[in-house]
Amino acid sequence: MVVIVRQGAEEAKIQKLTQDLENLGVSVQRIDGSDTTILGLVGDTSAINPAQIEMNDIVERITRVQEPYKKANRKFHPDDSILEIAGNMVGGKELTIIAGPCSVESEEQILNVAREVQAAGATFLRGGAFKPRTSPYAFQGMGLEGLDLLKIAKRKTGLPIVTEIMDVAYLDRFIEDVDIIQVGARNMQNFALLKQLSHCNKAVMIKRGLSSTLEELLMAAEYVMAGGNNRVILCERGIRTFETATRNTLDLSAVPMLKKMTHLPVIIDPSHATGQWWMVEPMAKAAVAAGADGIMVEVHPNPPAALCDGAQSITPEKFTELMRKVDAIARIEGRSIRGKAQ
Amino acid sequence: MVVIVRQGAEEAKIQKLTQDLENLGVSVQRIDGSDTTILGLVGDTSAINPAQIEMNDIVERITRVQEPYKKANRKFHPDDSILEIAGNMVGGKELTIIAGPCSVESEEQILNVAREVQAAGATFLRGGAFKPRTSPYAFQGMGLEGLDLLKIAKRKTGLPIVTEIMDVAYLDRFIEDVDIIQVGARNMQNFALLKQLSHCNKAVMIKRGLSSTLEELLMAAEYVMAGGNNRVILCERGIRTFETATRNTLDLSAVPMLKKMTHLPVIIDPSHATGQWWMVEPMAKAAVAAGADGIMVEVHPNPPAALCDGAQSITPEKFTELMRKVDAIARIEGRSIRGKAQ
Amino acid sequence: MVVIVRQGAEEAKIQKLTQDLENLGVSVQRIDGSDTTILGLVGDTSAINPAQIEMNDIVERITRVQEPYKKANRKFHPDDSILEIAGNMVGGKELTIIAGPCSVESEEQILNVAREVQAAGATFLRGGAFKPRTSPYAFQGMGLEGLDLLKIAKRKTGLPIVTEIMDVAYLDRFIEDVDIIQVGARNMQNFALLKQLSHCNKAVMIKRGLSSTLEELLMAAEYVMAGGNNRVILCERGIRTFETATRNTLDLSAVPMLKKMTHLPVIIDPSHATGQWWMVEPMAKAAVAAGADGIMVEVHPNPPAALCDGAQSITPEKFTELMRKVDAIARIEGRSIRGKAQ
Amino acid sequence: MVVIVRQGAEEAKIQKLTQDLENLGVSVQRIDGSDTTILGLVGDTSAINPAQIEMNDIVERITRVQEPYKKANRKFHPDDSILEIAGNMVGGKELTIIAGPCSVESEEQILNVAREVQAAGATFLRGGAFKPRTSPYAFQGMGLEGLDLLKIAKRKTGLPIVTEIMDVAYLDRFIEDVDIIQVGARNMQNFALLKQLSHCNKAVMIKRGLSSTLEELLMAAEYVMAGGNNRVILCERGIRTFETATRNTLDLSAVPMLKKMTHLPVIIDPSHATGQWWMVEPMAKAAVAAGADGIMVEVHPNPPAALCDGAQSITPEKFTELMRKVDAIARIEGRSIRGKAQ
Repeated sequence: MVVIVRQGAEEAKIQKLTQDLENLGVSVQRIDGSDTTILGLVGDTSAINPAQIEMNDIVERITRVQEPYKKANRKFHPDDSILEIAGNMVGGKELTIIAGPCSVESEEQILNVAREVQAAGATFLRGGAFKPRTSPYAFQGMGLEGLDLLKIAKRKTGLPIVTEIMDVAYLDRFIEDVDIIQVGARNMQNFALLKQLSHCNKAVMIKRGLSSTLEELLMAAEYVMAGGNNRVILCERGIRTFETATRNTLDLSAVPMLKKMTHLPVIIDPSHATGQWWMVEPMAKAAVAAGADGIMVEVHPNPPAALCDGAQSITPEKFTELMRKVDAIARIEGRSIRGKAQ
Repeated sequence: MVVIVRQGAEEAKIQKLTQDLENLGVSVQRIDGSDTTILGLVGDTSAINPAQIEMNDIVERITRVQEPYKKANRKFHPDDSILEIAGNMVGGKELTIIAGPCSVESEEQILNVAREVQAAGATFLRGGAFKPRTSPYAFQGMGLEGLDLLKIAKRKTGLPIVTEIMDVAYLDRFIEDVDIIQVGARNMQNFALLKQLSHCNKAVMIKRGLSSTLEELLMAAEYVMAGGNNRVILCERGIRTFETATRNTLDLSAVPMLKKMTHLPVIIDPSHATGQWWMVEPMAKAAVAAGADGIMVEVHPNPPAALCDGAQSITPEKFTELMRKVDAIARIEGRSIRGKAQ
Repeated sequence: MVVIVRQGAEEAKIQKLTQDLENLGVSVQRIDGSDTTILGLVGDTSAINPAQIEMNDIVERITRVQEPYKKANRKFHPDDSILEIAGNMVGGKELTIIAGPCSVESEEQILNVAREVQAAGATFLRGGAFKPRTSPYAFQGMGLEGLDLLKIAKRKTGLPIVTEIMDVAYLDRFIEDVDIIQVGARNMQNFALLKQLSHCNKAVMIKRGLSSTLEELLMAAEYVMAGGNNRVILCERGIRTFETATRNTLDLSAVPMLKKMTHLPVIIDPSHATGQWWMVEPMAKAAVAAGADGIMVEVHPNPPAALCDGAQSITPEKFTELMRKVDAIARIEGRSIRGKAQ
Repeated sequence: MVVIVRQGAEEAKIQKLTQDLENLGVSVQRIDGSDTTILGLVGDTSAINPAQIEMNDIVERITRVQEPYKKANRKFHPDDSILEIAGNMVGGKELTIIAGPCSVESEEQILNVAREVQAAGATFLRGGAFKPRTSPYAFQGMGLEGLDLLKIAKRKTGLPIVTEIMDVAYLDRFIEDVDIIQVGARNMQNFALLKQLSHCNKAVMIKRGLSSTLEELLMAAEYVMAGGNNRVILCERGIRTFETATRNTLDLSAVPMLKKMTHLPVIIDPSHATGQWWMVEPMAKAAVAAGADGIMVEVHPNPPAALCDGAQSITPEKFTELMRKVDAIARIEGRSIRGKAQ
């Protein structure tokens, strides 16, 4: 930690501050410039709250030297984390392809989609049972019944399932039935939920909040990891900006940046990011070209009849074509989609 | 709802769409322009999902005519809502002044602050028992013990209390002990929590999410009201923008805009918005000048020693001076702080 | 244009408004819903200023039916614009590759870079002669001398040149010497400059402003086209968001969206967007995967010694490798880089 | 400047970097922590380009110790700058009130408005002669004829005038006729224009760009001041955020923050910020309560007939009432509007 002292500060006050800092257990090394004094704090600075020190009237600013995330930090874990989930390796050479409808609507629907996306190369089935909706008057998902239908689809196809948890009350059911528990963008900083998830050993995919920085996303991962659950996947799904032509702005530069900051796998969701089915293909291809470990795509057999977000769903036919192209892009960097031969 | 048809659409498709819309129970009125056709939907459009209709390939765009919030909408409730809470009228001529420390730290601390802010004109005591912190390694609040200390302070001073709920698990305790249950910015779209709060009859103050639109804030209020709880207060606490010189950007234009959109009371939190104690006074004064129904201010007897957010806390002395100035501004529009005589 | 009338408006006022609108030369068709009245304006609405009509106290809102950009609009020009510039076709099957140093620094530097990027597949040479710098104390470019050096490099290599104009005073020199005149992000709405450029027949590449919407970018293009110059290229170079880990947020969803809105070619600049050399490769690949017509990349023989923005420049070696990968991605959709054989 | 060395860097490389830095003319002081090394640079660091040093592969990050703005910096000019402009003191105890129509439309219009706003307390007349419009097809202002009409209004009322320059070509006319030359938000980083303005001795009011940080606004001021013109006024007019309910987000926290960063006067424009006449009064009052040195307000005798931005103009009657209230708020801090007696 580096303390930049306000210009013209009295010597006595600088010495008092130095003493106070040393009382907190760090050693203080001082640099005197022509018109600025800098204090470098050496040792364990974890007991020091920078905001408190900034309140000292001779302190101009504090600069943190270390990132606040530890377990998620690539510095302390240089190799990529590759998670084994229900027989799939997430984060390795094989792309993770999560596909399925926005909402589970019926046994027939989820089963048909599961079979089609599986045939095209998907490695996980997604489907919403509990849906976060801006309006209390909108369809809120089938709830536990939806979860039951996902289980049936898993049993019949073997595809492991990914679905969103909204209420801690159902955590036991999710732990039992779900392969990757998804934390939605709106709950990324629902710390009560994150703490509960930190105590289980289930894979957790955290979607970046609409206005969350990458550091905050990693701090959400850190909440889960701090409790002992290292099975965390990150998902970028579009951020909120001033642009209104697209629903959100898909931040693909997050892919290389997250890869530098952390060892955790990074998945991109082009469906929610764009909100438009015809933008899913270009953005899915771009995501893989940028180095994402996988994509999550909404697929619906009859998008105009979908109960939720049909506008962003693609048909199984389009999904099959997308898989072919994504595989070709992945191969340029030595990655691929399972079961695809060039 | 107005459907704008894509230029050059075939007549047969327009007629098919018209038929489909009428099958949904609305009457369709058609306007043919020189190169555009518009369909106006008359009747109950609540069964119509605009996103689905936009998927029709002859549809250019849909325009909503009505706001999605009903119970929070001023159109259907032209008069200001004035809530009676523990003897205080929130939303009326008398400003609501919520003050206290960021975190409850000890009985002595909360009791002293309570007495000082009460003497200066505060009508509610605030204090965090459960604290939402970006880092799992930061102080998370005293929890239920903090709630107990708030109760003691209330009993000894008579000041009703405002504190944040983070976990539905403690809802019963909050309903019993707290006068205004605060939903934090990070939980504004925690729909599971909002639904639980909709079933009680306790006043709920919802803080605007860091990147939530005013419409989304009203939809969060609608979640609570839809379940039968009309005792909702809105709080603007700064939004996230590109500017980094200030912690957040306090959106004071939200005050007149919310006053136009809704009948619910609007409170401003200048402490969290700015993150700097020396900006609290100018922004608190500006909030009241803009027409806010009240302010929420962090006050701490010894800010540099605060366990949380000391940098944004003002001393009781500064708070007393602030109350004097805020009262003077309020009087220009016929409002005032209780117990202040000009 | 659709006028949504405020609920409960008096019939007399609606009729008065209808009369006023018809006096402006349009025909008004009225739709009466259960509690809303809508007026559809048919005919030439170009004389109508929506903001003025919204001031009428019975008007709730106006909805535009048509886009404000005409010449840039794909609706009126369904085929892609392919511009022939100094023997290169910009916007067609062959990717446009613009490469070179941030700033022209010396004859040797610009000539060496030109030769290296040309050998690797570049079709245009870029290099800043006049540099827009946030600080008046920073290096402002070599000015006209830089322009002279670019001309020498062009003469010796045959590579046409792209460089930024900052001052209308030099327009004649730019028209004479430059193949694509670049309008920087900060000047995207410098309307005096855009008007001057509309009167020449030189290709103009307009960079999107840091906080400009895609519609505003197209309106800037429209300024140039309205004066008779249809040779316009659009360039996305990152937008400003709340995220601070990356310098800007490269908005790749702009690629498919612009392709829908307009017929003009779209170039991506991953160097300025990210500000980091190691992010250039992944984002350049993603740009091409998303369907961009080309990329603009900063290349410097010795980035740490660059006078400007060295941190975002890649070496000629890395550029050569990048070209190989970008070509492979382009071929998946039937495009390629000139001179590359798979 | 503080250089934070990457963890685990080789000692030889640290010594090489130290040597390189010292060769640039600074003295390097080194702090070795448990796992981090920090280099503090002492002396004149102006020859050092931080971005270059960050490219060194053992450098983690650079922290600037000093602000990049010098002449605009309050540190080097602790007292408020009070500018004498045509007999008015801008930045002192008396509020600066700039009022008038968005566009000059006719002699009668500008003269009538001038007289009305003068009677109500305005100290400057504003009026657009050259208008920056997003669309090339919209009214672009009366141009030089508008400037002539402003001069007539000035001659007849004595009110000094404020108007926007868009094209350097007219600079001589502006210097001769205008009292405060306004640089619009879209031209805030039109460095060619700023440089020209730095060579005259005319007061310049710079409006903050829609997505410009406060530091960038001060750097724009620095461009003017670096050339020798210290007569600079800053104007906040709303920033671009994700919120769409309001046209822009008026950033009033910019007032206290700018007052801390700089000694220059700060004016608020609530008309452009909100785009709605009924929001002008609350935001103007809030601006003055926050400590602004003045406000700029659009006033039009018949807003619905205005050729430009009528929706955000208030009538002279409303302006008169606004002046009364603003004066009352100003008096709480010992300021006032000229000619108003309490």
